[in-house]
Amino acid sequence: MSRITLADVIAALGGDLVGASDIEITRLGPLEGADSGTLSFLSNVRYQSQLQSTAAVCVIVAPAFAEAAAARGAAIVTPDPYLYFARLTQWWAARVRPQATPRIHPSAVIDPSAVLGEGVDVGALAVIEAGVTIGPGARIGPHCVIERDSQIGAGTRLAARVTVGFDSRIGARCIIHGGAVIGADGFGFAPVKSADGGRWEKIEQLGAVQIGDDVEIGANTCIDRGALDDTVIADGVKLDNLIQIGHNVRIGAHTAIAGCVAIAGSTRIGAHCTVGGAASIVGHLQIADHVHISACTLITRSIAKPGQYTGVFPFDDNASWEKNAATLRQLYSLRERLKALEKKL
Amino acid sequence: MSRITLADVIAALGGDLVGASDIEITRLGPLEGADSGTLSFLSNVRYQSQLQSTAAVCVIVAPAFAEAAAARGAAIVTPDPYLYFARLTQWWAARVRPQATPRIHPSAVIDPSAVLGEGVDVGALAVIEAGVTIGPGARIGPHCVIERDSQIGAGTRLAARVTVGFDSRIGARCIIHGGAVIGADGFGFAPVKSADGGRWEKIEQLGAVQIGDDVEIGANTCIDRGALDDTVIADGVKLDNLIQIGHNVRIGAHTAIAGCVAIAGSTRIGAHCTVGGAASIVGHLQIADHVHISACTLITRSIAKPGQYTGVFPFDDNASWEKNAATLRQLYSLRERLKALEKKL
Amino acid sequence: MSRITLADVIAALGGDLVGASDIEITRLGPLEGADSGTLSFLSNVRYQSQLQSTAAVCVIVAPAFAEAAAARGAAIVTPDPYLYFARLTQWWAARVRPQATPRIHPSAVIDPSAVLGEGVDVGALAVIEAGVTIGPGARIGPHCVIERDSQIGAGTRLAARVTVGFDSRIGARCIIHGGAVIGADGFGFAPVKSADGGRWEKIEQLGAVQIGDDVEIGANTCIDRGALDDTVIADGVKLDNLIQIGHNVRIGAHTAIAGCVAIAGSTRIGAHCTVGGAASIVGHLQIADHVHISACTLITRSIAKPGQYTGVFPFDDNASWEKNAATLRQLYSLRERLKALEKKL
Repeated sequence: MSRITLADVIAALGGDLVGASDIEITRLGPLEGADSGTLSFLSNVRYQSQLQSTAAVCVIVAPAFAEAAAARGAAIVTPDPYLYFARLTQWWAARVRPQATPRIHPSAVIDPSAVLGEGVDVGALAVIEAGVTIGPGARIGPHCVIERDSQIGAGTRLAARVTVGFDSRIGARCIIHGGAVIGADGFGFAPVKSADGGRWEKIEQLGAVQIGDDVEIGANTCIDRGALDDTVIADGVKLDNLIQIGHNVRIGAHTAIAGCVAIAGSTRIGAHCTVGGAASIVGHLQIADHVHISACTLITRSIAKPGQYTGVFPFDDNASWEKNAATLRQLYSLRERLKALEKKL
Repeated sequence: MSRITLADVIAALGGDLVGASDIEITRLGPLEGADSGTLSFLSNVRYQSQLQSTAAVCVIVAPAFAEAAAARGAAIVTPDPYLYFARLTQWWAARVRPQATPRIHPSAVIDPSAVLGEGVDVGALAVIEAGVTIGPGARIGPHCVIERDSQIGAGTRLAARVTVGFDSRIGARCIIHGGAVIGADGFGFAPVKSADGGRWEKIEQLGAVQIGDDVEIGANTCIDRGALDDTVIADGVKLDNLIQIGHNVRIGAHTAIAGCVAIAGSTRIGAHCTVGGAASIVGHLQIADHVHISACTLITRSIAKPGQYTGVFPFDDNASWEKNAATLRQLYSLRERLKALEKKL
Repeated sequence: MSRITLADVIAALGGDLVGASDIEITRLGPLEGADSGTLSFLSNVRYQSQLQSTAAVCVIVAPAFAEAAAARGAAIVTPDPYLYFARLTQWWAARVRPQATPRIHPSAVIDPSAVLGEGVDVGALAVIEAGVTIGPGARIGPHCVIERDSQIGAGTRLAARVTVGFDSRIGARCIIHGGAVIGADGFGFAPVKSADGGRWEKIEQLGAVQIGDDVEIGANTCIDRGALDDTVIADGVKLDNLIQIGHNVRIGAHTAIAGCVAIAGSTRIGAHCTVGGAASIVGHLQIADHVHISACTLITRSIAKPGQYTGVFPFDDNASWEKNAATLRQLYSLRERLKALEKKL
C-alpha cells in the first residue's frame, strides 16, 4: 500500500482541512490510544475532553469543534463527522485490503444451468445449483450453498459458509456474513389431536425469501422462507448476528436490528425502525414506521405510534432483586390493600 | 407440473366438495391476497370476515362454515381445516417441487467403512466419516459433516451444512435444517481454585446425542452431547431455529419449541409441551407433560402441574416504563410502608 | 481399548484408594443409573443420599464422605472430587476415543503461502487462505475456512465448519466448536439523515479478533472483528454455544459465559466473571472482575463491585402473572397514592 496523506483523504471525501495537507496517515483510530499517524474523529460530545489529550495527528470534527481541534493540530471540518468517518473507513478498506482476484476455484460445484454475471468470483468449494443466476461482480465465499432457482444481485457478497435456499431472491450490493441461513423452512405444524396427547403434522413451506438491495445480514442469522407468501426484507435493512426472522415476516426499508433478536412469524415491521439486541416480537403484529424497541424487550401487541418502547426488569444486586421480585408476586393484592385503606379514609 | 383440479385434491386427501370438481388450482394461499386460482382455508374464527371478501376459487372450511363458504363459491368441508391444509401442503410440495435425483456426488468424501442404505442421496462435498450408517432413502446435503460411528435413520433429510457429531443416533424421517450442530461438547468445566482467581478444567463430554423419529430441527440450532449419559430428544419433537439444548437435556415426545430458546444442562422437559420463542429454562429442572411456557419467560424452578406459565415485564412506552421500573426497586419497601399504614388503622 | 482398573486411575491421577486396586472400570457415570462397572463421583452434598443406593463399583469422594463411601464399597478419596473427575474424563477420553491420524486430506484447499506446523491435521475440504500460519499439532476440521493472514496456535482444535476471519489470532490449546464464526464484521453504520427517513452508511470494520490461550468457543457462537481496534478474548475464557460478542468487546481471563448471551460493542468484562445463559450486556460498559450475572438478566450500567447481579421477572402461572403484570403498569401511581395516604395520617 502506498503512502496516504491528508490531501488524498480530502481529494476523495471532501471536508475543510485545517493544517498541512502532506501529513501522512498510517491508521484510523479512536481518540483514545491514537498515535502520531492516526486520523481520528469526534462525533459524540461525551468524548469532547479527549480532544485535548489525544495524540492523533488529525481529528475529524464538526464546525462547533473546529477551533478547539485546530488549537491542538490538524483537523478536517465537516458537518457530520461520524458519516464522514464511515465513508473514510470504506475508502481506507478499499486501499489497504488485498483485492480478491476474480476467479472461480476449480473445486466449486456449479450446475451447468447456472448463469454467472461478468466478474463473478466464486470461492473454493461453493455449490451453485441448477437455475441459479448470479449478477455481475458478485462474490460467493468458500463452502456457500446456493440452492436451485435462486438469484443473487449484482455486487452482492456472501462470506464463507452461507446458505441461500431455493427460489430466494437477493438484491444488489448486499453483504451476507458467515453461517447465515436464508430460506430454511418456517416453523409450521398443524396439531393432530388424539387421546394420547397428539402430534404435529408438518405444513410444507411453499413461499420463498425476498431480500432487497443494500441489505446486510449478520453471521449465523436465519431468515425462514414463507409458508405460502414470501418473507420480505426491504432495501437498506441491516441485521446483526444470530437473529431469527420467522416465516412471512416483512421488514420495512432501512430498519436496523441488533444481535440475537427473535421475530416470530407474519409480523410486519415498518421502515426506519430500530430493534435493540435480544429483543423479541411475537407473531402476527404490525409495528409502525419509526418505532424504536429497547434491548431485551418483548413486544406482545401491535404498535401504531412512533416512539421508544421498553419492557425490562431493571437489574440490581441479587439480594435487592430477590426482595423486590418476591414482592412482585403480591403486587395485585398490594393494590387491593391500598384501595381498601383509601376507602377507609 | 401438470394441471391440478379440485378432483385431484379430493382424491388424494378426502373431504366433502361443494362445487365443480374440474376447477383448476394454481396455488395455495391465505384468504387475503388470494386470486382466482387460489385454494385457501379458514381455520381461525378470527379471519371469518375474510371469507366473503376473498377472491379464492375454493376455501377449505369446517362444517360450521360450510354454508357461508358455499354461498360464495367452491368449498372443501372437513372437520379440521388446518390439518387438512397441512396435508395439502405436503401433497402440493411433492407435486410441484423438482425431485432430487438420487446420487452421491463425486466430490463427497465418504469413509469406505460407512454403510449407505438404498437410495441414499449424498450431496456434493459432504463428509461421511468411518463407521457411519445411513438408512435407506436418507438425503445428506452439501457440506454436511457426519462424524464417525453416527447413525442416520431411513428417510431422514439433512439440509446443507449440518454437523452430526460422533456416536450420535438420529431416527427415521427427521428433517435437520442448515447449520445445525448436533453433538458439540456440552459446557462442562470444574473450577480450579487458586490465589490468583482460578481457572477452568475441561470435563470431557463422554455422552452422545440420541434423536427419535419424526423430529424436525431448525437452522443453526445446537444440541450438545451429554457429559456422561446422552442428551435425548424423543419422537416427534419439533425445534425451531437458533435453539440451544444443553448436555443431558431430555425432551419428551411431541414437544414443540420456538426459536431462540435456551435450555440448560440436565433439565428434563415432558411430552406435549410447548415453549415460546426466546424463553429459557435453567439447568437440572423437571418440567411435567403438557406444560406451556410463554415467550421470553425464564423458568427457574421445576413445574409439576400442566398449564401455562409466564414471566415477562410488560412493555410500555419508554417514559411510562421508566417511571414504573424505577419504582420497582422500592417495591419491597412500599409493601413495608403499606403494612405500617394498615397497622396504624 | 484395553482393560482399565482402579490401579490405572490412581497411577494416572493420584488420590487415596479405599478397596481393591484390580477392580475393572468400564464406564464413568453419575451415581444414579450406575452399574457394577461404573466409576462415579459425589461432588455436591445435595446428592449425598444417592451414595448408599448407587450400584457404582467405586465412588470418588471428599475426605468428609470417605467413611460413608467405604461402608458401601470401593472409593477414591481426594480433596476436590469434581476437579478429580474432570481430569478423569480427560484421561478416559484419551484412552477410549480413536486417535485422529495426522493427515491433510487431498481435497483441502491450502494456499501455498500458508505455513503449517509439524503434526498439523487438516481435515477434508478445509480452505486455508494466503498468509495463514498454523501452529504444530493443531487440528482443522472438515469445511473450515481460515481466511488470509490468520494465526492458529499450537495444539488448537477447530471442529467441522468453523470460520476464522482474516487477520485473526487464536492462541494455543483452544477448542472451537462447529459453526462458530470468528471475525465477521461488527455491526457499525452511520445514519445518513434525509427527508425520507434516512439510511445507513456502512463503517468498514478495520480491526481484527485476538483470542488467547486455552479458550473454548461453543457451536455457532459469533465473535465480531473490531471497528478500529481489535476484539479481545483473554486466556482461559470459556464461551458456550450461540453467543454473540460484538465488536471491540474485551473479555478478561478465565471468565465463563453460558449459552445465548449477547454482549454489545465496546463493553469490557473483567476476569473471573460468570454470565448466566441468555443474559445480555449493552454496549460501552465496564464490568469489574469477579462479577456474576444471572441468567436472562439485562445489564444496562457499568458494574464496579464484585457480586451477583440479577434482573428477571419471576415466572408464575399465567393467570397470576397477568394480574400482577397489569398492576405493574400502575406501580408509580400506587407509590404516589401510598405517599398521599402517609401524609394524611
